[in-house]
Amino acid sequence: MSSIAPLDPPARLLMGPGPISAYPSVLRAMSSPLVGQYDPFMTDAMADTQRLYRQVWATENEQTFLVDGTSRAGIEAAITSLVRPGERVLVPVFGRFGHLLAEIAERALAEVHTIEVPWGQVVPASAIEEAIVRVRPTLLALVQGDTSTTMNQPLDEIGAICEKHGVLFYSDATASLGGNDFEADAWGLDAATAGLQKCLGGPSGSSPITLSDRAVEVIRSRGRVEAGIREEGDESASDFIRTNYFDLGMIIDYWGPRRLNHHTEATSMLYAAREAAAVLLNEGRDAVIARHRLAGDAMLAGVRGLGLGVFGDVAHKMNNVVAVEIPEGLAGDAARQAMLDDFGIEIGTSFGPLHGRVWRIGTMGYNARRDAVLTTLAALEHVLRRFGAKVPQGGGVEGALDVYGAAV
Amino acid sequence: MSSIAPLDPPARLLMGPGPISAYPSVLRAMSSPLVGQYDPFMTDAMADTQRLYRQVWATENEQTFLVDGTSRAGIEAAITSLVRPGERVLVPVFGRFGHLLAEIAERALAEVHTIEVPWGQVVPASAIEEAIVRVRPTLLALVQGDTSTTMNQPLDEIGAICEKHGVLFYSDATASLGGNDFEADAWGLDAATAGLQKCLGGPSGSSPITLSDRAVEVIRSRGRVEAGIREEGDESASDFIRTNYFDLGMIIDYWGPRRLNHHTEATSMLYAAREAAAVLLNEGRDAVIARHRLAGDAMLAGVRGLGLGVFGDVAHKMNNVVAVEIPEGLAGDAARQAMLDDFGIEIGTSFGPLHGRVWRIGTMGYNARRDAVLTTLAALEHVLRRFGAKVPQGGGVEGALDVYGAAV
Repeated sequence: MSSIAPLDPPARLLMGPGPISAYPSVLRAMSSPLVGQYDPFMTDAMADTQRLYRQVWATENEQTFLVDGTSRAGIEAAITSLVRPGERVLVPVFGRFGHLLAEIAERALAEVHTIEVPWGQVVPASAIEEAIVRVRPTLLALVQGDTSTTMNQPLDEIGAICEKHGVLFYSDATASLGGNDFEADAWGLDAATAGLQKCLGGPSGSSPITLSDRAVEVIRSRGRVEAGIREEGDESASDFIRTNYFDLGMIIDYWGPRRLNHHTEATSMLYAAREAAAVLLNEGRDAVIARHRLAGDAMLAGVRGLGLGVFGDVAHKMNNVVAVEIPEGLAGDAARQAMLDDFGIEIGTSFGPLHGRVWRIGTMGYNARRDAVLTTLAALEHVLRRFGAKVPQGGGVEGALDVYGAAV
Repeated sequence: MSSIAPLDPPARLLMGPGPISAYPSVLRAMSSPLVGQYDPFMTDAMADTQRLYRQVWATENEQTFLVDGTSRAGIEAAITSLVRPGERVLVPVFGRFGHLLAEIAERALAEVHTIEVPWGQVVPASAIEEAIVRVRPTLLALVQGDTSTTMNQPLDEIGAICEKHGVLFYSDATASLGGNDFEADAWGLDAATAGLQKCLGGPSGSSPITLSDRAVEVIRSRGRVEAGIREEGDESASDFIRTNYFDLGMIIDYWGPRRLNHHTEATSMLYAAREAAAVLLNEGRDAVIARHRLAGDAMLAGVRGLGLGVFGDVAHKMNNVVAVEIPEGLAGDAARQAMLDDFGIEIGTSFGPLHGRVWRIGTMGYNARRDAVLTTLAALEHVLRRFGAKVPQGGGVEGALDVYGAAV
């Protein structure tokens, strides 16, 4: 019998909208030996991870931890734990991931109201306030960075509006956290979730979350301790959360001093999440965001230097991704494939109304790097020319170098 | 500013009820570089992983894949996708994890019926059939191996009973798969889920699942494609599954040829899951189960050789864990702590009615090994004596060696 060989992934420079190449130290961390789930080393590592993520989120929230699943798991845990069936949720939609928040709220049997702006724009704070007044939702669920359009929704005025109207404020920061400003406390967030596979430079599979005291109060009011570990004095609310795995109250009790048995912590993913935060904080949170801004500006200048158009309101673009218009008549998918086959570089396709119209090029996490930006632009120049586009010789690399030069 | 050091886990031999020390090659696999989620390498790795797990489960089920979360995520995905609110679920309870299945079904608003046997016993097939006739459930949810009691529930007669009465048959094989017989097709399972952190020798965080055609039919009848990626012709059932993340229909379409965007696959956990299956299949599924049986028999003989009692119906014990009675008057938790502090060996405490009465000692996955068994017994002898128990000198190691010797 021939033996099954280990996987041997090809070399890839992941310059799409995510997932992206993880930091080497994050990959190494996942090879660390396992320990028991109540080993003092493990519980210390969990507490340490909470402490680090408070800094990543810029929050004092005690309830800052990981949900064991992909970024989508964090979103579902937040919405399902915060919203009772029949309650109203307002979702401003400016791309694919607004639809996802609405979808998840619908699955939780919320009454979902959306407002939409055209793809490529963000939602004005005034429009959000108007809709809040009209809809009177329990929760506002708002994407920060939507990779489908590259837009970075301003959040800094939204918390005050929510507080004024007694609305819980949740944001999905999956694509933006770590590469763009995010101030959980200063902006008045009640809940925010993310993933590792974008600017945090880790693999998908762990979702950092932070919850305000007000959010915890709502979750606690729906508390239920599961049969099998329930003790006298543990009461269950009748409007309990309709999921065990995503019941944030139980997850809080698992991470907290009671250490009540819930799931078995995904140890290797915890190691990854902890190291991703350590990388970010060792370099400095503001420095990492500045590195993303610089790489994003350089990539933007580079694609423009190649004569390519850019989709959307660039003033509100995320630092970490740009939507590049595919030249008229050029075979976009074949060109993307050539980038992968000939250069080992992945750039992204796009969803819905933008499918076939733009490529999405990311510069995030480990790959928010000068050499990654320049290499991608050099390869793109060759591929564009081969596929029939007229491109200025060296225009991409030079455009990016101008930005990097100016920054020195 | 002092820098945050990488985690440096202590050396631990994990001989508890799980999680246990992962196979070294599984740890190494997680350090492999990431690739994009639609990279041909990635989609091939996903298809390959499905093929390997069909062999692990002993099934021809096309729908065999991973749920991105811990073993509990797989349980919730199975139950929530298979059972509509108000439908009846029958859960035979013979330990803590039966309560968990009941709890998860209650969260899904099923009408849950349980039958119970005392801890340390398994449930007779006749009692299950009697309850099925009485309750007329949609689903029978039955744990195979419950680490809380160490019992291994016989499943081989249950599928035929379920088929006779038109009941879907789901089993939670988290603690047993890979170390005990499991025959998904031959035993008539409609759904089964597991985790990596027990006999499969990986970290927690990925849940293998397999679904029969009958189960897929139920799931498909509740189909809903999410807004944002919905296309013409995609219809939504009114009794749609009340979760997006655990909607197995969507996860099937993500793993299947449509590759419809759902979550972003947890690539490093996929690598781990794939390598755990490869390790098992390279050694041979039956050989691995036999190795678990041998290690379990040796550990059982060893603890008896130390004069310790064993809890429960040993004829129905799982291969991979034994519940060892703590000698009268001995400080069980302090002794367990001494095992960890002085020898780096973790053995398990216990839940509920057994708390303080037994330790649970596991021999699973990578640690279903002769040296791990003997080392644990040698250390346990010393600790028992130090804590005041009278133990036969060398009785543990010799008891185990007799079993290993007889097997050569």
